[in-house]
Amino acid sequence: MKFSKSTDLAVHGLWILAQNRPQQVFIAELALKQNVSQTYLAKVFQKLARKGLVNSVRGKRGGFCLARDPEGISIADVARAVEAEEPFFECLAPVRGCEGQNDCKVRETFLHAGEVMYEVLEKITLADLLLVAQNNGRSKWLR
Amino acid sequence: MKFSKSTDLAVHGLWILAQNRPQQVFIAELALKQNVSQTYLAKVFQKLARKGLVNSVRGKRGGFCLARDPEGISIADVARAVEAEEPFFECLAPVRGCEGQNDCKVRETFLHAGEVMYEVLEKITLADLLLVAQNNGRSKWLR
Repeated sequence: MKFSKSTDLAVHGLWILAQNRPQQVFIAELALKQNVSQTYLAKVFQKLARKGLVNSVRGKRGGFCLARDPEGISIADVARAVEAEEPFFECLAPVRGCEGQNDCKVRETFLHAGEVMYEVLEKITLADLLLVAQNNGRSKWLR
Repeated sequence: MKFSKSTDLAVHGLWILAQNRPQQVFIAELALKQNVSQTYLAKVFQKLARKGLVNSVRGKRGGFCLARDPEGISIADVARAVEAEEPFFECLAPVRGCEGQNDCKVRETFLHAGEVMYEVLEKITLADLLLVAQNNGRSKWLR
């Protein structure tokens, strides 16, 4: 039960884009700064593009830039974009032969837990991360 | 980002034990009721035994019984026992070369989100599940 490393890479990658606004940043540079493979990071950024969080700039000088203001992108938006394919809780009702899949107390509890978790992630935006970096005089979390 | 099917199996398995107290239940019966392999379920129950949630009864007539009252076992206890090996959030600070791993706003936010999520799971115990089953006249979620 954990968020994937893709989510961590996406949040930090968007943080870099926010710091470089309005300039685009090349995927090679984003990968270098995070010390991960360009191919892997490109796949993560394709998910972000599909969800409208970044715009990709095509061509030889292609790269990515934020599609919205930093105030409009929460950590929850990023996590949902990256993790969206997976349900929060894998209910085995169909395997088990449960009758009460839609009003099961176990399922209800896990889904509620997921909601309150995402409410926390909703409250922090890229603008908050920028503010932290500015208050520190630099982004101490990025090379 | 999801809870594993092992957690779902563990919660429902303990629910069966709670309903059968003080009798033990054989792993073969638990597996049959949940329509999963006995080997797989046995591994899940070994984790629960290691965390003191169930007692295993050895021998030919061996099986499992609850190690505590249903009031004393929350869904959070079960989830922690099963998912404990995995950190909630995979921070890539060591890979990325971050300096601020211990006071990173991103890491702090994800860890806080995990805490509030577990607080929800903490509030529901096996006793609550038993009550739901009793109010329905039977356990409609288990065959």
